[in-house]
Amino acid sequence: IVTQHTAVNGISHRGRVLTLDSMNPNVKRVEYAVRGPIVQRAVQIEKELKEGVKKPFTEVIKANIGDAHAMGQKPITFFRQVLALCSYPALLEDSKFPEDAKKRAQRILEACGGHSIGAYSTSQGIECIRQDVARYIEKRDGGIPSNPDNIYLSTGASDAIVTILKLLVCGEGRDRTGVMISIPQYPLYSAALADLGAVQINYYLDEDNCWSLNITELRRALNAAREHCNPRVLCIINPGNPTGQVQSRQCIEDVIRFAKEEHLFLMADEVYQDNVYAEGCQFHSFKKVLFEMGPEYSNTVEMASFHSTSKCYMGECGFRGGYMEVINLDPEVKAQLIKLVSVRLCPPVPGQALLDLVVNPPQPDEPSYATFMKERTAVLSTLAEKARLTEQIFNTVPGITCNPVQGAMYTFPGITLPQKAIDKAKELGLVPDMFYCMRLLEEDGICLVPGSGFGQREGTYHFRMTILPPTDKLKVVLQKIREFHLRFTQEFS
Amino acid sequence: IVTQHTAVNGISHRGRVLTLDSMNPNVKRVEYAVRGPIVQRAVQIEKELKEGVKKPFTEVIKANIGDAHAMGQKPITFFRQVLALCSYPALLEDSKFPEDAKKRAQRILEACGGHSIGAYSTSQGIECIRQDVARYIEKRDGGIPSNPDNIYLSTGASDAIVTILKLLVCGEGRDRTGVMISIPQYPLYSAALADLGAVQINYYLDEDNCWSLNITELRRALNAAREHCNPRVLCIINPGNPTGQVQSRQCIEDVIRFAKEEHLFLMADEVYQDNVYAEGCQFHSFKKVLFEMGPEYSNTVEMASFHSTSKCYMGECGFRGGYMEVINLDPEVKAQLIKLVSVRLCPPVPGQALLDLVVNPPQPDEPSYATFMKERTAVLSTLAEKARLTEQIFNTVPGITCNPVQGAMYTFPGITLPQKAIDKAKELGLVPDMFYCMRLLEEDGICLVPGSGFGQREGTYHFRMTILPPTDKLKVVLQKIREFHLRFTQEFS
Repeated sequence: IVTQHTAVNGISHRGRVLTLDSMNPNVKRVEYAVRGPIVQRAVQIEKELKEGVKKPFTEVIKANIGDAHAMGQKPITFFRQVLALCSYPALLEDSKFPEDAKKRAQRILEACGGHSIGAYSTSQGIECIRQDVARYIEKRDGGIPSNPDNIYLSTGASDAIVTILKLLVCGEGRDRTGVMISIPQYPLYSAALADLGAVQINYYLDEDNCWSLNITELRRALNAAREHCNPRVLCIINPGNPTGQVQSRQCIEDVIRFAKEEHLFLMADEVYQDNVYAEGCQFHSFKKVLFEMGPEYSNTVEMASFHSTSKCYMGECGFRGGYMEVINLDPEVKAQLIKLVSVRLCPPVPGQALLDLVVNPPQPDEPSYATFMKERTAVLSTLAEKARLTEQIFNTVPGITCNPVQGAMYTFPGITLPQKAIDKAKELGLVPDMFYCMRLLEEDGICLVPGSGFGQREGTYHFRMTILPPTDKLKVVLQKIREFHLRFTQEFS
Repeated sequence: IVTQHTAVNGISHRGRVLTLDSMNPNVKRVEYAVRGPIVQRAVQIEKELKEGVKKPFTEVIKANIGDAHAMGQKPITFFRQVLALCSYPALLEDSKFPEDAKKRAQRILEACGGHSIGAYSTSQGIECIRQDVARYIEKRDGGIPSNPDNIYLSTGASDAIVTILKLLVCGEGRDRTGVMISIPQYPLYSAALADLGAVQINYYLDEDNCWSLNITELRRALNAAREHCNPRVLCIINPGNPTGQVQSRQCIEDVIRFAKEEHLFLMADEVYQDNVYAEGCQFHSFKKVLFEMGPEYSNTVEMASFHSTSKCYMGECGFRGGYMEVINLDPEVKAQLIKLVSVRLCPPVPGQALLDLVVNPPQPDEPSYATFMKERTAVLSTLAEKARLTEQIFNTVPGITCNPVQGAMYTFPGITLPQKAIDKAKELGLVPDMFYCMRLLEEDGICLVPGSGFGQREGTYHFRMTILPPTDKLKVVLQKIREFHLRFTQEFS
């Protein structure tokens, strides 16, 4: 039926089985700006630099992705000691390793099949690690109970987010599941929704109020969506990616009330829970607020919360560790969830081991505690300093407006682009902020992600930049962007 | 539209957002026997034993999954030394580590962002590791070129298999993509097809001829399927899972010719390529045979081949390492594939590092070579011995018929079940071989997977057993199954 015949040199040829025309159309609709065309060009420029091509700069600074180690952040010593011990248990005899690291490694190995991290774990994740996660959540939430049976370890947070969305998306036409996501959003969400063929429902964060979430806007978006799909899910990212916003307790309560009233499944992406810098800001977990609102809420609102080893103070992205906690999930659906994750066998065990250390770090009476706290504090206080620096410097630039970086690892400043630049971009077939970011990359070797990759109100332009480069380098980056912006504005005025 | 109201105690309650009735129906159709109900029961029994419940046995032997380390196989020393060095680079100063391990670790770290395996890699996988994979393939295939751009590292082989299927599946009704899979099959395939809503096309392997693949049967299955779907993909597992069959070169040539004639995309699951035991049997890669058939084939047939760090002599399942090589993939589709894998950021970097060691092990002039070869040879020769033992002992049991275990890690013997047992199973609402395996588990603590989980000809019954338990334990297992089978047959005669 779909076999294609083309005539080349008079001979009839069949085309390929798999072409752009004959592939899964949902995959075609997927977009992922954080590793999109601008990053591919950045990699190309790096190669050109290596080959000796002359550029106005000597290195590409990739501020496009929250990849702390790539930006020079050092791993937490204790975590890596334990991982080395788990990888090569002969080191357990080595007197150079502290006793607490050995104890931790032994405990993890005992929970592994054949005492090896090379064995598959159960698909939900190693039981004693899920217990540790539950205890961590209980401590974080002031004693509100957490059940290890509700914890699912995952391959980074992305894996768990996609898995829950997969369970939720169904129906056809007007019955198709709609999923509410913030604009700007982290493009994993839009990508997963395109892949699953779900309906994306945009609610806009309030840029004029530090990117805060507004219930009136949530309701507007929901009502509009009810005309053409079946909204069932509300996704929240707190602290915000790409906005850096930290939600108030009141806002979270309002969101939970809204979810209950409107019969929505809540997905709380809380991977930046330890990344809060601004004074007066504090991380409140959705779980804690939910339970403090009383049984009317805590017994009914369905929720999944996501966490990861990739962010916070450890930044261990490469290990792909993470977990989710599900609340009020239907027991029959839980069985389906376990079945679904079984197909991929298990999350990477080294990532599970790392997660165990994150949720169960050295304690005050243990030999590694002092070093651990020193390393952790250094990372977090440097991040806080860089968050302030970023806001300050950007706000000195005419045409750049930067909200406070209250948390997470990013800033998402608004940029004013001259009409001539917008026209020029259109001429080149580029969205205006892509044109802007591409020019910055070519001229200064700085790789940002255009705001259009995250979504923004029509007619506004932004970029996302991580605050991860080392402080000295970050200052240079900010200064270069400042100069570029002035130059760019002048050129197109 | 789908909001459900139920009246409890006279009060109107809304049901949950996510229930068995309102969830993704494709997920409901997913089945994965290798970790299905029998394994859940096995885990339960283990807990009961721990709690002191008396059983006719003292431990559960899990012969349900190809998990070598869980069965006591030791990791390859060199691999784990390098992984420890990569995890905790301070060990590079330690004189106890051999120089070749250090060199290897340094090379991997230099290829990582910030020289840390905690950084994200590119989504396709670290470039120098993809180069090493390409060289490995070239060596394996007698010099046929392999391009690192065609290599995609993955989270185990399962990840890559699902990714390629996702690209391929599209269309509605009679145009829906059909995917040919062997029966018996590895249930990842049926599970992924259910999840994607693809049409599963069964072709039966020939049990009477060592589970060989027969082109007449392929053609029968294809023609029948063309009545109701659009067959576009042919999946092959060689060496076979669960059959243990190793395909002849002739057979592979025939399959390739068939794929070309019938315009099918070939998926070659070759994760057991180093697990070949039977005399006269040899692993032939689909890629090599394809290229030896000349440009008419090697320039046109589209193919993906999959490999993993989980099997062979290393059995490192927990690291979730793997790769695929794509051949003749449309360049536009390749761009889509890169975009798709970008959404999940990258495969676990420790798994990538491990894969690098598998494709680039110690060389004869390096200090770790002798130990490496000793360890590798010991594992493979023990597996060969266990393969022979399994076939021999099973074939002494009246009512069990076992083909030679030519390769892979499994046996899939046919079992004759008395009619009364079949009737009893039906009475209990179980498929007959599930009833058989459940009884074996309850009576002897041996966990196998019923043949129905892999598919089998109607009216025939089988189980899959791994040959991985240590030789002494395997002998006990085989003896116990023998006794159980006789007892079971007698009970229901």
